[in-house]
Amino acid sequence: MSLTFVRSTVREMHGYTPGEQPGVGERVVKLNTNENPFPPSPAVLRAIQEIEPEHLRRYPNPTADVFRDAAAKVLGVTRDHLIAGNGSDDILTIATRTFVAPGQTLAYPDPTYSLYPVLARLEDAKVVEIPWEPGYQLPIDGLVKSKAAAVYVANPNAPTGTFVPPAQIAELASAFKGLVLVDEAYADFADDNCLALVKKHENVVVSRTFSKAYSLAGMRFGYAIAQPHVIAEMMKVKDSYNCDAVAMLAAAAAIADQEYAKERWEQIKSERARVSAELEKMGWDVLPSQANFVFARTPDARGHDAYQGLKAQGILVRFFNKPGLADKIRITIGQSHENNALLAGIKAITAPAQVA
Amino acid sequence: MSLTFVRSTVREMHGYTPGEQPGVGERVVKLNTNENPFPPSPAVLRAIQEIEPEHLRRYPNPTADVFRDAAAKVLGVTRDHLIAGNGSDDILTIATRTFVAPGQTLAYPDPTYSLYPVLARLEDAKVVEIPWEPGYQLPIDGLVKSKAAAVYVANPNAPTGTFVPPAQIAELASAFKGLVLVDEAYADFADDNCLALVKKHENVVVSRTFSKAYSLAGMRFGYAIAQPHVIAEMMKVKDSYNCDAVAMLAAAAAIADQEYAKERWEQIKSERARVSAELEKMGWDVLPSQANFVFARTPDARGHDAYQGLKAQGILVRFFNKPGLADKIRITIGQSHENNALLAGIKAITAPAQVA
Repeated sequence: MSLTFVRSTVREMHGYTPGEQPGVGERVVKLNTNENPFPPSPAVLRAIQEIEPEHLRRYPNPTADVFRDAAAKVLGVTRDHLIAGNGSDDILTIATRTFVAPGQTLAYPDPTYSLYPVLARLEDAKVVEIPWEPGYQLPIDGLVKSKAAAVYVANPNAPTGTFVPPAQIAELASAFKGLVLVDEAYADFADDNCLALVKKHENVVVSRTFSKAYSLAGMRFGYAIAQPHVIAEMMKVKDSYNCDAVAMLAAAAAIADQEYAKERWEQIKSERARVSAELEKMGWDVLPSQANFVFARTPDARGHDAYQGLKAQGILVRFFNKPGLADKIRITIGQSHENNALLAGIKAITAPAQVA
Repeated sequence: MSLTFVRSTVREMHGYTPGEQPGVGERVVKLNTNENPFPPSPAVLRAIQEIEPEHLRRYPNPTADVFRDAAAKVLGVTRDHLIAGNGSDDILTIATRTFVAPGQTLAYPDPTYSLYPVLARLEDAKVVEIPWEPGYQLPIDGLVKSKAAAVYVANPNAPTGTFVPPAQIAELASAFKGLVLVDEAYADFADDNCLALVKKHENVVVSRTFSKAYSLAGMRFGYAIAQPHVIAEMMKVKDSYNCDAVAMLAAAAAIADQEYAKERWEQIKSERARVSAELEKMGWDVLPSQANFVFARTPDARGHDAYQGLKAQGILVRFFNKPGLADKIRITIGQSHENNALLAGIKAITAPAQVA
């Protein structure tokens, strides 16, 4: 089976490997894919309960205006600054196809979200990985000199959780002629964000998702913010009806309920501080996180052992088998009882063997 | 605003223009975008009502297995013959990215679904349009000689509604070295389909949608059927979580309720025969349709006048301003009262002026 009719790029590549997704019924402490540990706002459930057959039977509004209007109000921009997507993965795919031509280059600080090279590969584009400066500072010079068509910066970054001040991203956007995409999947857990850069920088696109901040990973909804004429270009690339009628109503309800969302973000940030401190007490080295997870080096620098040891106790975390990452594990911040289970699980695997 | 950071292909293109989508509350007879006129199965509504916060909070199963298992049972194939998508537009995007490399060619019989050249363009691929043979027979020789990487055949075709016997598609798949995608968006309204070809032909992919046959255009759900190792290649290209948790449960419920669906298909086919006969009585030339719409030449060959005249009466149909199509309009088959409104509307615009 030679599959000669398959594009060679695809034939030769491996797809992106998402984290393990056990069934909803399985009893695990799931701290591996950065979902929000709290349920979505009750307003979301109500919006879904109120779906009528006509919403399902008819094509949805192609530009998700019910969502764009709700988001515009919260973000203080006009509707035409926004494009909605089927998860921020869809937004990242649209961006890559809008701003990176086959044969061109996508650059990003390394390590980061492992989807970026997959997106470039699918576009027959090259990749330039610029190592973070010490302390996870943005390698502005290296990125500018890459002469890439686009630079993607996850901020806060994954899997590190570290944060680059918006002023540094602004400096990059001024010095760099290509597109700067700021992937703000985790920005709602950070002290600041890059929304304000869009006004001044035509070449900045900020992407967001409902998967983490709004507890809607299952619903697949994301969006991007940029200047209207940039959004108009991205609109040409998206599938005609890329967001479904249920998702756009759910996302509109979610973003309108800022009070509910913000309360949960504060709880997660407070738990993040507690988990980080407890890990450090146990000899772990925890990167300063502004996301809803922490990336921490185990005392013996054996990330895979910790991953396995926790998994054996029904606790899922994420291990990255890559140079520079394999001494750590990434732990999603859960509800307080889940974090307690995690900390107890870690104690169990790292306690010195008792003399019998 | 030079937008130099936007890919030139995108900057220079126009996006696909979907049909008009008035709000759910607007009072129009909507026969312009081939939605099913009946509501989805009550089982779909129940599935949506039963959505729990955990379905929303967590990432969905990346391969939509709950749907693939339900569909496999109905179609008589195994799960690994299927890939699910966010509408069949997503499936067509995935297919184009899997089987057509930048610089290669996509061929299709012309006229057909106007999305195909947009998909090719986004891939920096060329397009070869081969005119249908007389009587809308498949131009097998022309397609084979195109030396394209892939051939897309909408069957039944849009906007014509005409149907190519599966034996002809099989002949094409045997003679052609590239990929043959059979876009079966309307196959449930036809007398036959190409599902059986997949077993024999490694290079055949059949795509389907829930938008027409299952009244779920608003939900965005489609799928493709092919040999498992071909599906595996398409899996690498799709977004990791391209289908949401609500949509996959809704689609699984819809396809499992074959009795409900088939009853509606029969009603639509019977109304299609009635509308076609009535139009012919009024001097319209109606192409033989196996879809849920008819494509018909107006007595004065002025499609746009008919479109406008109907729109003025609150009846939306589709007009295509292209050579060879502009003498016709495409009319979605509605419920019987909607079809009556259409026929009355046509009488009103084509009646000879009365002498006062």
